[in-house]
Amino acid sequence: MCRFLIFKGRDPILLAHLLTRPEHSIINQSYDSRLRIDQRRPINGDGFGVGYYTTESDPELGDAPCIFCATTPAWNNMNLARLAEKTKSNMVFAHVRASTSGVLSETNCHPFSYHSLMFMHNGQIANFSRIKRKFVDHMGDEYFVHIQGGTDSEWAFALFLDCLSRLGVDPARNVEGTTGFGHEVIRKALEQTISFVREWCNECSQLGDEPSLLNFAVTDGHSVVVTRYITSRTEEAASLHFSTGSKFIEYMPGQYRMERRDRRQDVILVASEPLTFERSDWVTIPTNTVLTINNQTVLLHPIIDEFYQTDLSVPRSSNFAASRGLVSPIVEPQAHTNVHLPPLEREGRRRLSVTA
Amino acid sequence: MCRFLIFKGRDPILLAHLLTRPEHSIINQSYDSRLRIDQRRPINGDGFGVGYYTTESDPELGDAPCIFCATTPAWNNMNLARLAEKTKSNMVFAHVRASTSGVLSETNCHPFSYHSLMFMHNGQIANFSRIKRKFVDHMGDEYFVHIQGGTDSEWAFALFLDCLSRLGVDPARNVEGTTGFGHEVIRKALEQTISFVREWCNECSQLGDEPSLLNFAVTDGHSVVVTRYITSRTEEAASLHFSTGSKFIEYMPGQYRMERRDRRQDVILVASEPLTFERSDWVTIPTNTVLTINNQTVLLHPIIDEFYQTDLSVPRSSNFAASRGLVSPIVEPQAHTNVHLPPLEREGRRRLSVTA
Amino acid sequence: MCRFLIFKGRDPILLAHLLTRPEHSIINQSYDSRLRIDQRRPINGDGFGVGYYTTESDPELGDAPCIFCATTPAWNNMNLARLAEKTKSNMVFAHVRASTSGVLSETNCHPFSYHSLMFMHNGQIANFSRIKRKFVDHMGDEYFVHIQGGTDSEWAFALFLDCLSRLGVDPARNVEGTTGFGHEVIRKALEQTISFVREWCNECSQLGDEPSLLNFAVTDGHSVVVTRYITSRTEEAASLHFSTGSKFIEYMPGQYRMERRDRRQDVILVASEPLTFERSDWVTIPTNTVLTINNQTVLLHPIIDEFYQTDLSVPRSSNFAASRGLVSPIVEPQAHTNVHLPPLEREGRRRLSVTA
Amino acid sequence: MCRFLIFKGRDPILLAHLLTRPEHSIINQSYDSRLRIDQRRPINGDGFGVGYYTTESDPELGDAPCIFCATTPAWNNMNLARLAEKTKSNMVFAHVRASTSGVLSETNCHPFSYHSLMFMHNGQIANFSRIKRKFVDHMGDEYFVHIQGGTDSEWAFALFLDCLSRLGVDPARNVEGTTGFGHEVIRKALEQTISFVREWCNECSQLGDEPSLLNFAVTDGHSVVVTRYITSRTEEAASLHFSTGSKFIEYMPGQYRMERRDRRQDVILVASEPLTFERSDWVTIPTNTVLTINNQTVLLHPIIDEFYQTDLSVPRSSNFAASRGLVSPIVEPQAHTNVHLPPLEREGRRRLSVTA
Repeated sequence: MCRFLIFKGRDPILLAHLLTRPEHSIINQSYDSRLRIDQRRPINGDGFGVGYYTTESDPELGDAPCIFCATTPAWNNMNLARLAEKTKSNMVFAHVRASTSGVLSETNCHPFSYHSLMFMHNGQIANFSRIKRKFVDHMGDEYFVHIQGGTDSEWAFALFLDCLSRLGVDPARNVEGTTGFGHEVIRKALEQTISFVREWCNECSQLGDEPSLLNFAVTDGHSVVVTRYITSRTEEAASLHFSTGSKFIEYMPGQYRMERRDRRQDVILVASEPLTFERSDWVTIPTNTVLTINNQTVLLHPIIDEFYQTDLSVPRSSNFAASRGLVSPIVEPQAHTNVHLPPLEREGRRRLSVTA
Repeated sequence: MCRFLIFKGRDPILLAHLLTRPEHSIINQSYDSRLRIDQRRPINGDGFGVGYYTTESDPELGDAPCIFCATTPAWNNMNLARLAEKTKSNMVFAHVRASTSGVLSETNCHPFSYHSLMFMHNGQIANFSRIKRKFVDHMGDEYFVHIQGGTDSEWAFALFLDCLSRLGVDPARNVEGTTGFGHEVIRKALEQTISFVREWCNECSQLGDEPSLLNFAVTDGHSVVVTRYITSRTEEAASLHFSTGSKFIEYMPGQYRMERRDRRQDVILVASEPLTFERSDWVTIPTNTVLTINNQTVLLHPIIDEFYQTDLSVPRSSNFAASRGLVSPIVEPQAHTNVHLPPLEREGRRRLSVTA
Repeated sequence: MCRFLIFKGRDPILLAHLLTRPEHSIINQSYDSRLRIDQRRPINGDGFGVGYYTTESDPELGDAPCIFCATTPAWNNMNLARLAEKTKSNMVFAHVRASTSGVLSETNCHPFSYHSLMFMHNGQIANFSRIKRKFVDHMGDEYFVHIQGGTDSEWAFALFLDCLSRLGVDPARNVEGTTGFGHEVIRKALEQTISFVREWCNECSQLGDEPSLLNFAVTDGHSVVVTRYITSRTEEAASLHFSTGSKFIEYMPGQYRMERRDRRQDVILVASEPLTFERSDWVTIPTNTVLTINNQTVLLHPIIDEFYQTDLSVPRSSNFAASRGLVSPIVEPQAHTNVHLPPLEREGRRRLSVTA
Repeated sequence: MCRFLIFKGRDPILLAHLLTRPEHSIINQSYDSRLRIDQRRPINGDGFGVGYYTTESDPELGDAPCIFCATTPAWNNMNLARLAEKTKSNMVFAHVRASTSGVLSETNCHPFSYHSLMFMHNGQIANFSRIKRKFVDHMGDEYFVHIQGGTDSEWAFALFLDCLSRLGVDPARNVEGTTGFGHEVIRKALEQTISFVREWCNECSQLGDEPSLLNFAVTDGHSVVVTRYITSRTEEAASLHFSTGSKFIEYMPGQYRMERRDRRQDVILVASEPLTFERSDWVTIPTNTVLTINNQTVLLHPIIDEFYQTDLSVPRSSNFAASRGLVSPIVEPQAHTNVHLPPLEREGRRRLSVTA
């Protein structure tokens, strides 16, 4: 079980407002496992990482993200606590990890980066060791030899870089002072990444295999592309939500909510679990969907393959994702029980594009 | 919240049988926090330590315990996992820690040691910073300057060494090849340690102060002395249990029980939480009691001061200890609900001596 | 043996230019120990710390420094390498440590901080355990209980805070948006700190004692006060140098020099070892001197007590400091051998004030 | 630059006698880098590992080695210091590492293990990224998917396991209570491993490539096979020595020598640098030779391929190995200058078998 969080803001935010101060930040989520109903991996105490881009455009600072990671529990890392109080950024990725494949090691910590690009994964490629060789055979040497650790996630990132490269974009290109690679080509490369993994899993599948959970997030510091995906027609993917508004504010110590003064999306959050206790702050991203952030605007597109359900009235079960600790315990139960709130999960599965 | 475990056996045990293999080992307890009803510090992911004495008497190996500790979570420490599969001992202390005072640091990891002596603490000295200076003023330089870290527990150990020294026993004496310092003098020094802390807490007390939780364990490799103590007449101390039998066996993978073929106490376990799911394996040590292990025999003595309840029918509340996550969730609820089992908690508070 | 470095600049500098890129940065010094002639502790692989103040005045960022430290070797810390490439500051402290007292632990890493104040130490209080109790007896509880680790350096910082407090300045005062506490009172408190340590060492001295090496550095983010001090009339203190100029520039990869276009001191560096190979970039601070930086101006004052040498023609030996690895190997030998360069060491001992 | 050490004794040895107490142990070598003449990587502060087999044959302890490794410097690891004082073994591998390929991570620490087998490497496969894919293509899935980290050494171990498997031996076979796989088949598999690496390096070679340094060591707990090898006709391999005798004794604190009361080889040491300052204790293993230990007997065989020099009077240069810090500074210079001692290096290159 992992958790991730993405922030993109018109104004920079103090990292502490995302990571350490909210009572329900991903770090405190990982600490306060009572809120979870995981059946196997209840605690995200296996390491964490945060990556951010510097706010000023300064050639000396370059275009690459700054990544800080550790294998000790996030809630007790004094360096993280201090850096979070002293660092602001417009674009932040954060990841808390419970090891599923790959031993505990800083080389296995998300986010992974490659020049200006940053990548993280929440989930698991099923039977990864069975298809690992297909990754090698498919990939160019440049990305294959770049792999340092042993996780399925890092291999998926290498595959993404390979896909991007075959689309004619050099992932090593310096994007400092530009608007980046553009969200379309990043999205295309990420969709291809999923497509290859899906295909290879199919080729090597055996009776009784579990599905793969492929919630990926990638950014070049400008655009963000995130997937909520599972190789199953009947199960939900790991939970994923987003929230937009004009400001993310702390109205009481440790208590945050999204302020919406108008329809502007000055602040966009994407998270495996809601960061606020306000049910209405969060929209659930439908299973097998790709979310794109471009210029503070959120777009949703379906990922249409054999695992896509055109008939959205057919329910998916969250049993599998829940068994992996990958279902957020707060929003979704309410969505099913609280008649006063709009059924955002199902609504979300219907509307495929949200624009400001 | 911390947890501790003590093993003393006529035969050595593979550490894995205590630490890593039992589904309800203190390490898995710390991992699997779903079982807990803590209200503040649900996860013991802040470091751990294990100390053991080598089985052979060998002058080259000496009389000091071997201590292995780390600040990363115990459940993910590969060194611990490997050492536990390859190491046997007759006398083991293990401790899993959630920081209450003292930052996360190897110098703050239990067990602490001094020559042949080993010490650990489950609980917290209330308002320690208010009485810290009294420790300095009371203590001889030798033990004061030996303190490396910042925890109340390490200061309590230094005070214990000072008490032992004033009782005429040099804590640095080599006990290799002997039967150690003897359980009486160790018990006396530990009781004095508690007495000093209690007195200083009283002197500095302010309205509304919380009680101090002083579950201490100390050994010289031969005798073991453990306290379950609280500076309160109305609250229970942090939970503490013991189990004796002829063998601690794994009857199914991960499932252990205490075998009792006769009344021998070849195996003695003391633990803040039961290691087995067998209710009848465990006896609850009454609050404000000192347990002594001498020659595979368990003795219980009351600690009689203003916090002792002579009338055992007056109940203590476990609210405070529970709020600190210091109540084992398994045995005690059953003790109140299961009529088929003898009410060991209350029984325990009556009989003050258990002998084989 | 430790090393430290102080940067104060009118413009912020990328930390990498101080820490990781210069071939002779303190981190590479610690790595490349061939340059050293230490006799006991040749490698500074025992941990490091860097503290810096954020460049913008922003109430949300506060007045406290951001400190990043680790117990793994600095030259292999990927987090440090990445942060150094992405962080700029006008005021930086950096410290590389080889343990002399106090075990390896993050709580023993310099710089230490307290609200806006930051402190580091290069050297060692001789026979610290003999005078540790005098620290306790002298100090107010507030600073005594704040101590987390076991080093003489952290106790010296607590003593400094106590001195500052007794001079009528609350060390916890928020100095955000102000010019800080003022360099005079900080210097006075630091001189008193040295005076107390000197006095206590004298009181507890025994025949054959080594001298204490007290190179301290303290800042509130505005003024900097640094001492080069030893409790000896005949030995040199641990080496300490400074360099001023208009810019610290990388003229070739890894090669830096101080540019001096005019007499402005836009950049001030203080370091236990020169960071550049240009002999003329560096002025040696005389033994038993305090250096103050105020408004980009360097001031030197003698510390006059029984260890001060009024007759500067009487040489001091560097044997003791060298035996602790505390003599920079590059500048000082040249100072004695190179007739073309002014003899800055001796010159430095004469002129007691350097102003822009 | 790395260093390794192998101990095989008729009687178990306290690990401290190998690792922490000798002034010239591999850990103190790594600390005390003044003795070295490395030109690039002078300090082995990047992690270490020690692996040993338990002394008793006990089914509960199994046939696998116990491995303890860390990414912090060995000289400051308190767990290692304590374990070394409390652990004895007949068969020990130890490794101190300076990263050349693969980032600092516990997954990159030697020795690597697989069931009863343990492996370490001193040196570097040149241009590993160019031939990495050939490893994948050649290897069976079982060993390919077992790789966790990013070092050439771990890939070489996987290749060795694959070779062993193709020789009809299942590397996962339980050898508890047996005499292991036998030294012949282990030697054959290791020679094949070298042969494959050599061949692939040849296929991908480019003008100006550096040679590969392949000092490998492998054991099943019974036999030991070690190579000293380089893919060059003109350069020496990384240094490697052995010493045999009746006892390895500490004649003064920190000073060790090999006692030889008769011609028995009760103690066999193989080390990249001599552990004692006695020149005559050590025999240099000739370049491109495989050393085998079987039943306390040392055997040497040449590795005959295009890099073997039949004419031993043709000298090899140690420039390349020295530039990597892979030449022991003590024995070899003496070998060339000290006329009173037999020229063991050249002698060693002639006699291909040393038996008791």
